[in-house]
Amino acid sequence: MPAGRVATVPPVPEQGATGKVAEVYEDIRRTKGIDAVPNFWRVLATNPDHLELVWGRLKAVMHPEAAGRSSKLAPVTREIIALAVSATNGCAYCVNSHTAALRKLGMDAELLGEVMAVVALFNSTNALADGYQIEPDVLPPAE
Amino acid sequence: MPAGRVATVPPVPEQGATGKVAEVYEDIRRTKGIDAVPNFWRVLATNPDHLELVWGRLKAVMHPEAAGRSSKLAPVTREIIALAVSATNGCAYCVNSHTAALRKLGMDAELLGEVMAVVALFNSTNALADGYQIEPDVLPPAE
Amino acid sequence: MPAGRVATVPPVPEQGATGKVAEVYEDIRRTKGIDAVPNFWRVLATNPDHLELVWGRLKAVMHPEAAGRSSKLAPVTREIIALAVSATNGCAYCVNSHTAALRKLGMDAELLGEVMAVVALFNSTNALADGYQIEPDVLPPAE
Amino acid sequence: MPAGRVATVPPVPEQGATGKVAEVYEDIRRTKGIDAVPNFWRVLATNPDHLELVWGRLKAVMHPEAAGRSSKLAPVTREIIALAVSATNGCAYCVNSHTAALRKLGMDAELLGEVMAVVALFNSTNALADGYQIEPDVLPPAE
Amino acid sequence: MPAGRVATVPPVPEQGATGKVAEVYEDIRRTKGIDAVPNFWRVLATNPDHLELVWGRLKAVMHPEAAGRSSKLAPVTREIIALAVSATNGCAYCVNSHTAALRKLGMDAELLGEVMAVVALFNSTNALADGYQIEPDVLPPAE
Amino acid sequence: MPAGRVATVPPVPEQGATGKVAEVYEDIRRTKGIDAVPNFWRVLATNPDHLELVWGRLKAVMHPEAAGRSSKLAPVTREIIALAVSATNGCAYCVNSHTAALRKLGMDAELLGEVMAVVALFNSTNALADGYQIEPDVLPPAE
Repeated sequence: MPAGRVATVPPVPEQGATGKVAEVYEDIRRTKGIDAVPNFWRVLATNPDHLELVWGRLKAVMHPEAAGRSSKLAPVTREIIALAVSATNGCAYCVNSHTAALRKLGMDAELLGEVMAVVALFNSTNALADGYQIEPDVLPPAE
Repeated sequence: MPAGRVATVPPVPEQGATGKVAEVYEDIRRTKGIDAVPNFWRVLATNPDHLELVWGRLKAVMHPEAAGRSSKLAPVTREIIALAVSATNGCAYCVNSHTAALRKLGMDAELLGEVMAVVALFNSTNALADGYQIEPDVLPPAE
Repeated sequence: MPAGRVATVPPVPEQGATGKVAEVYEDIRRTKGIDAVPNFWRVLATNPDHLELVWGRLKAVMHPEAAGRSSKLAPVTREIIALAVSATNGCAYCVNSHTAALRKLGMDAELLGEVMAVVALFNSTNALADGYQIEPDVLPPAE
Repeated sequence: MPAGRVATVPPVPEQGATGKVAEVYEDIRRTKGIDAVPNFWRVLATNPDHLELVWGRLKAVMHPEAAGRSSKLAPVTREIIALAVSATNGCAYCVNSHTAALRKLGMDAELLGEVMAVVALFNSTNALADGYQIEPDVLPPAE
Repeated sequence: MPAGRVATVPPVPEQGATGKVAEVYEDIRRTKGIDAVPNFWRVLATNPDHLELVWGRLKAVMHPEAAGRSSKLAPVTREIIALAVSATNGCAYCVNSHTAALRKLGMDAELLGEVMAVVALFNSTNALADGYQIEPDVLPPAE
Repeated sequence: MPAGRVATVPPVPEQGATGKVAEVYEDIRRTKGIDAVPNFWRVLATNPDHLELVWGRLKAVMHPEAAGRSSKLAPVTREIIALAVSATNGCAYCVNSHTAALRKLGMDAELLGEVMAVVALFNSTNALADGYQIEPDVLPPAE
């Protein structure tokens, strides 16, 4: 009976969570404006210190205003980068999660197709540049 | 005497190029507004059919207006995706090339740092989601 | 209830397809000699321009005679390369698809085992060469 | 009906196995102290020579004492490396298998979290070092 | 004149560094007990916020005692994981850096060979498990 | 002074090699019909057991007749797989080595271009299949 992917450690439920885990869960729900904590964070919660560390970094990078930082990248651009990385790495959970985030930000299937066209193109050219070991072009020095 | 990366096949020089290669070279220079054909294309030119095929696709995706297409992605977003893919794959030639393209489009080192922060973050979370085999969240069905 | 992989965008059905999508679908069925368009193409069809672009390239590379090109690589060699790349990238859809193609071309499980032995060996040596940062051997110059 | 992952070739059952396959199966059960041969080996058995080759190498590296070798790496360290590689490659079967091995060796979810924190951190810094093409620090020469 | 890898942005020198960058540089030197800040950090310093974020995470994970945390993983195990990830990703800078760290911790070439043997083995088996799409063994449920 | 890639451990010279290392070196030269042992093997020789293990496997897979085995894969097909894997992984040493092997087997730049076209195409489609999480087509059951 082949089954789908099941996390190798059981996620920590929201109900009954205490201490550091409960605090991070609450911050995730508030910062993201969602009702349920995604599986990703509930699995990380099996090591509360690591949960806190990863959430702190993701909050700083992806929700800079909530973290008291400023950013010149648009939220949709950040999610596009996330999807490009996840598609390149072939990460199932991440592709699902970031595609959902892009849909929430209004991206339709046609625009998603444009994003994927660029992702696919450069996975292709990367293999060519590496497969021929092409040497970098001489560039003007960075200022 | 350890040396840098040298292409496994010698690039086809611009001077003396004929036929299909000369045509593609000319189209590359005109479409990109550059004086010299980058090493990438000059190495691909060792198989003229493949040069034509890859250039045709890159032109359609990255220079849609020149290819008679329309696109809703901004050029800078396309180059950001290219860099995100290339950094994830660790492709030296490609990282150099797309960073140079982003500098030409006005991106400074601080904004590049924001892009790289997102790229790095999701290479990290990809490893976590895969390393724990976290199962996708149940999402509302795509319309 | 963990489920298998489900595409993040719904595939475009063959029935009712019109315009560019219908044309590409028909060309895929005719060129490949199959009755049903695989999921891969039906998902790409959510962006008809991209569908056309990817199919055009795959047709040129994998069905050169149908695309009016010539090739010195045997079809079975091309599918072996496809499987080697897909196994290295860990792409589930692609491994299934290219293994099925090789079975159709007559490859049995024992010969598949030989292919996989080579794929596995070089994923191993790649890690060693990169993990020790071994410098390339000095080679006679390419002519 | 989307299903989970199913091997592209049917595994060779333990019952009825003969010759080289039966011998390797028996050695796997004895060396690992398990009752059933894992799917990995039963799929490799479709090419008995390859089964023997891969098992011989894994036995030498992971069960050195059984192979008449000595090793200075602790078994738990070897399994941690296996998990780090598998998480980085996103290999589902391997992540499941090596996490199970670590649990058998007594690793709990909190310590697993520490391992994954290191794995995730360096997938992140790898992307940064490659994404900026940072040149190696000058090191004292290896003795 | 092919040259080695050169960072796409110029590193920020230690001399003359101010504010957040100077503080992080000082913390890196003190925490790691080194005289010069490695190139990695000097390149990240082109975006001081990102420098601070990455250093904060690396300090927490790799120097837990300095960060006021506790850890059950030995420092040498953490560096072994770092090398395993870096070899798998083929990250040149990182392989150099973590091999140097392991040498400082007393690892000789023979033991390094044992580590690399495990890294290489599992890059090989990962390709096999993914290349055959082997389904996970049924495991006893995680407690 | 940025330099090229230098192995993290010094290769073991052929002159003065003794015991197991000398034996494997001699077998490499004889089996491959070459005068000098490539850097790859001279670096592995820092752990003689590992040298023996990796050479034994490579000999069995890539030089089956010398190892007393038979194979239905042509030598050029095996080297093509090696190059496809190495290009996909972006392994510099390996790309150089396997391209040189293919040149020795008579492959010219045009045919190499065909190989690279297939490699590049499927790195592209892999990213699409993973990036959309396309579910496998229902296939007829393997016999």
